[in-house]
This record gives sequence, C-alpha cells and structure tokens, in this order.
Amino acid sequence: MNTRKIKILGTGKYLPKKVVYSSEIDHKLGLPEGWTQKKSGVSHRHYVETESTSEMGANAAREAVRDAGLKLEDIDCIVSASGTSEQPIPCTAALIKIKLEMGNSNIPCFDINSTCLSFVTALDLISFLVHQRKYNKVLIISSEIASPGLNWKQKESCILFGDGAAAVVVGRSEDHEQSEITSSLTETYVEGASYTEIRGGGTRLPATMFNGTNLEEYLFNMNGRAIFKLSSKVINRFMDRLFESTPFSRQDIHMVIPHQASGLALRIMRQKLGYTDEKFMNIISTHGNVIAASIPMALHESIKQNKIQRGDKLLLLGTSAGLSLGGMALVY
Amino acid sequence: MNTRKIKILGTGKYLPKKVVYSSEIDHKLGLPEGWTQKKSGVSHRHYVETESTSEMGANAAREAVRDAGLKLEDIDCIVSASGTSEQPIPCTAALIKIKLEMGNSNIPCFDINSTCLSFVTALDLISFLVHQRKYNKVLIISSEIASPGLNWKQKESCILFGDGAAAVVVGRSEDHEQSEITSSLTETYVEGASYTEIRGGGTRLPATMFNGTNLEEYLFNMNGRAIFKLSSKVINRFMDRLFESTPFSRQDIHMVIPHQASGLALRIMRQKLGYTDEKFMNIISTHGNVIAASIPMALHESIKQNKIQRGDKLLLLGTSAGLSLGGMALVY
Repeated sequence: MNTRKIKILGTGKYLPKKVVYSSEIDHKLGLPEGWTQKKSGVSHRHYVETESTSEMGANAAREAVRDAGLKLEDIDCIVSASGTSEQPIPCTAALIKIKLEMGNSNIPCFDINSTCLSFVTALDLISFLVHQRKYNKVLIISSEIASPGLNWKQKESCILFGDGAAAVVVGRSEDHEQSEITSSLTETYVEGASYTEIRGGGTRLPATMFNGTNLEEYLFNMNGRAIFKLSSKVINRFMDRLFESTPFSRQDIHMVIPHQASGLALRIMRQKLGYTDEKFMNIISTHGNVIAASIPMALHESIKQNKIQRGDKLLLLGTSAGLSLGGMALVY
Repeated sequence: MNTRKIKILGTGKYLPKKVVYSSEIDHKLGLPEGWTQKKSGVSHRHYVETESTSEMGANAAREAVRDAGLKLEDIDCIVSASGTSEQPIPCTAALIKIKLEMGNSNIPCFDINSTCLSFVTALDLISFLVHQRKYNKVLIISSEIASPGLNWKQKESCILFGDGAAAVVVGRSEDHEQSEITSSLTETYVEGASYTEIRGGGTRLPATMFNGTNLEEYLFNMNGRAIFKLSSKVINRFMDRLFESTPFSRQDIHMVIPHQASGLALRIMRQKLGYTDEKFMNIISTHGNVIAASIPMALHESIKQNKIQRGDKLLLLGTSAGLSLGGMALVY
C-alpha cells in the first residue's frame, strides 16, 4: 500500500489564441470535408503563433495557484512535466519560473519526461515527497507545443494534436481530509518503443544534422494501429494490477480522466474498460491531443464543469511512447 | 528531517573507446600546446564514434547491477537521469531497456532532466519511493553524449566536455544498516538561466529550423565567469541550509563527490568550502565534464579506488543550468 495524503489544491489551463478547425485541415491536406473531424474526433484544436512553452506554462500556473487560494510565494517547487521542452538547456521549469517573475525565489526547478504520461509520472513521484513533507506546495506544469513537430504527410497522426498548457498545485491533505493518492502503477512495454517516435533532435541524430531532405526524421511518427493492438492486449491486466493495491474497485470510480489520445482511442478504451460516457472525461473534440497536458487539462475541465466533487474517486489513466501505461487512483 | 533508508547497492560506468587528448584539441583549434589542458584541467576525455546513448547507458547499467550482486530481473524501475536524450520520443530510459534486452519486462521507464544535476535530482526523488517501498531496486542511469553539441568557436567551453555513462542501483537499506540519505537540497536561481544554454532544438527554435547559418543557436553556450560569480555568491549559504537539517556537519564529510564542471571550478569550489584535496573527488583530468554522468561516475571511481567505505559520510554537490545548486548528504 502506497497511500499518500495528497490533495489537488488548484488547477489551471491555457490555450493558444489561434483556433484551428478540422475543416481547415481537410482543406490544407486536400481531404474531403469532414474527414479530419471524423477520423480524429477533434472539432478544433489550438496552435501557438507567438506563445512560448514557458509563457503558456506560466499562464496555466498562475491560474492554478489562484484557484488554490495561494500566492506564488507559497510554492516551494516547480516541475515541468512535458513531452516537449522549450530549449534543450536549461530545463523548462526554470524558464517557466522566469515567466512567473519569481526571480527572487530560489525554489528548485526540474523537468520530468515520460512523453504523454509526464504529468502522471511527475504527480506520482512528487506525491511521495509532499507526503513526507519534503515540499509543501508543488506546481506541476505540462506545457506542450506539438504543432511544429507534426508530419503533414502522415494524416492519421497530424490531425490529432493541439498545443496548450495545464497546471496543478498539490499539497498535503489535512488529517481530517479524505483527499489522497491511493495507488499508482506504470508499466513500459518496449516492444512498442518504435510505435511512437521522433527520431531526430537528440544524440542519435542531432538537430545540426537536419538538412531538409531528412525532414521526416525530425517529425512525429506514429503507428496508431500497433499502439492500439498492444495497449488493448495489456490494458485489462494492467488495471487488475493497479486495483490490486487499491481499497476500492474499478466500478467505484466516479470519473476516469484519460489521456486524450484520439476520439477513437477514447471510445474503444472506455468500452473495453466498461465505463459509461458520463464517467469517462472527454475533451478531445475541443482541444485535440495536447500530449502530457491532456490529463491535467481534462482534470481541470472536469472540476470546472462540476463533474467531480471533493471525495470523488478518480482514475488518471493513459498511454505514452515507450510504450508505457500509467494509472493512478485517487480521492479528489 | 527527511532521512531515507537508502543504500547505493552497486555502480558502473562506460567510456567510449575513442580517447581525445588535450593536445589534439590544441592542434584542432590552433592553440599553443598545453593551453587546453591548462585551461580545462582535462588531460583527455572520450568522444563517441559509434556508441549510442542507450548502448553506453546499458553497459554502465549492466556493470552496476553485477556490482550490486543482482540480476536485471531484480530491477523494478529504470530512470534515465541525463541532460541529453537519444531521441525526443520515446524517453531514453525505454531505449536503454531495449539495449538491456529486457523486452519481456514491464517495469516502468522514464526520464528526469535537470541538466548536470539530473542524477542528484533523480536519486533524491526516487529515494522517497524506495524508502516507502514503492520500488525495491531502481537503476538510475546518466548517459551523456556532449560532443556533437560543442561550439568549437567557444574555446572556453568546448575543451571541458567528454562523453560517457554511469549507473547506480539503489535499494532500501536493512534496519541494521546505517546507509541512508540524510538530507538534500536543490535551489534554482533563474537570474542565471541564460548563463548555460542550448537555445535551439526545442519548441522555441525547432530542429527543423536549422539551416547552417544559425548553427550557434543549436550549440552549447556557456558564460563561465557569470556562473562562477553567481555560484560563489550563493554556495556557502546553500551549504548552511543543506546542513541545517543534517545530523552531522560539513566538517564530518569523508568525501565530497562534486560535479566535475572544470578543473578550475573544482579547485575554487573546494577552497571556498574548505575541504582538502583528499576529501574532494576529482576525476576531471581523465574524463572531462560528462554532464549529469559526472557525479555518479566520480562516485563509482571513489568506490572502486577504495577512497570511501561503507558508513562514510558523503556529500554529492553540483551546479547545473538554471542556474541550480544541488546537494545531498548521505551515509554510504
């Protein structure tokens, strides 16, 4: 049992100003009107024009801190939990701290990256430190700019993604409060490591090797069918293992906050796990897949839309490149 | 007090086959013979030719697991704690898992990045989870390929770095064992965020914007003098705060395992903190600055050279881009 007395104190989000409708993508790619929306489940998503990763992250963070009834001075650690970063060096958390105008603060900043599951991984790790009172109030921020890395020749993947940021403030719950992280599980199946890739831009193929003719090496590449096949094969046993150490069952969950992979993935996952539409938070049609920001953004929306209340049992659940599955049962 | 019952069970390292002597760099840059060694404190460093990040990481990891008297099957979590990554997607930990031929395992893989302090950050975070028995035996691997990102026009920085990997296996110490992490502290001073940068290759300036004429945007840029000035200003108060919650004092440390920033930085830091040469592990002359791998590699060498024994009090200490300071007091 790894229960942690953790409370989600506040949430925030930021979406870039520019809205991109699926009909525009149909037009751009020469596809029949309606194809993009039907295939992706996305009506519109947002793309950055001038906004930076750190600006979006700081905007979401400010809202989360306000929502928690706190001030920035109350925060004692900043974690960027994103699949993309603003610069290779320094870490994005430090760049967000600058945009928060926290230049006089010496609180620590670092990044955690497990692509689409970065937020869940960061919350899982940080919860142990907050439970043990190493940190009191932690900002976890997922700020993602997916749009420049999309491969417009791979129409099944480029239609899915949007840009945006979400942030959460976590702290320790009081003894009389029921808020807690009840259990968590991450599993990585490397047989699927090549199913989701950006091959270029790291040490394997440095950015400085980009020459125009090798463009696709530097763009997002996804084998949706293979991901679907592998995750379908393992998801139910994964859920059994996650709930083995949870004092309530899969059926007791009030709301699943899933990664917003695609409209189809959400529908199939929901059906496979046996949840109703009402219990499976879905924001894909108005946000797209915002990489690691998808889960905290869906959490934020479920709170703001009054779909969940304090004391409700939640399940954060997603897949990421690796291929990894991540799940966390918590009492909100 | 945040004592964690953690034991470093085994360590390993890997250095690329190719050795590069400082005299070769003098020659390459048209500098007087001896300039590079004198300025950097590095006699030779290693650069990869064919080795990949994940191969180097897997080699170091295998040695660490063997050194711990364990088998790969005993490991239940793999963390890549590096400033560089092999690919933008998936995380480097998953790619290392492939090279470890652990395809049948579903243990989690994720990355933690706080540039040069990534190892200390990862060990700090993971120690809480191991202490709470969430994981039993964790592989933390720092595998760094610095050489392709060096700016050969910035001779003060390009002469410092080397490639290589180090790995550590950590587990929970038995009740009768004294091994523990006694305290830890990280502080980020964003006034120094631009002192160490690679600006291009993230969302700010994507890899696909590289065009040859903007090469320097994609290379490592360092203002050594400014880093030195800021870290000198804050280091002693940082140490005071770190040792406030440590049951022993700065003087009780048997061995400091510092980040191997440069020969000069090591000497000045040591003098400023008042440690003798014997108590300040220095491997820079034969390794260079191996980014986040520097600290675990120096730890590995201090163990293998019998400079530290079980029960000794150690201080891991370093700076990283951000600008961050990180320290950890532990009983080996």
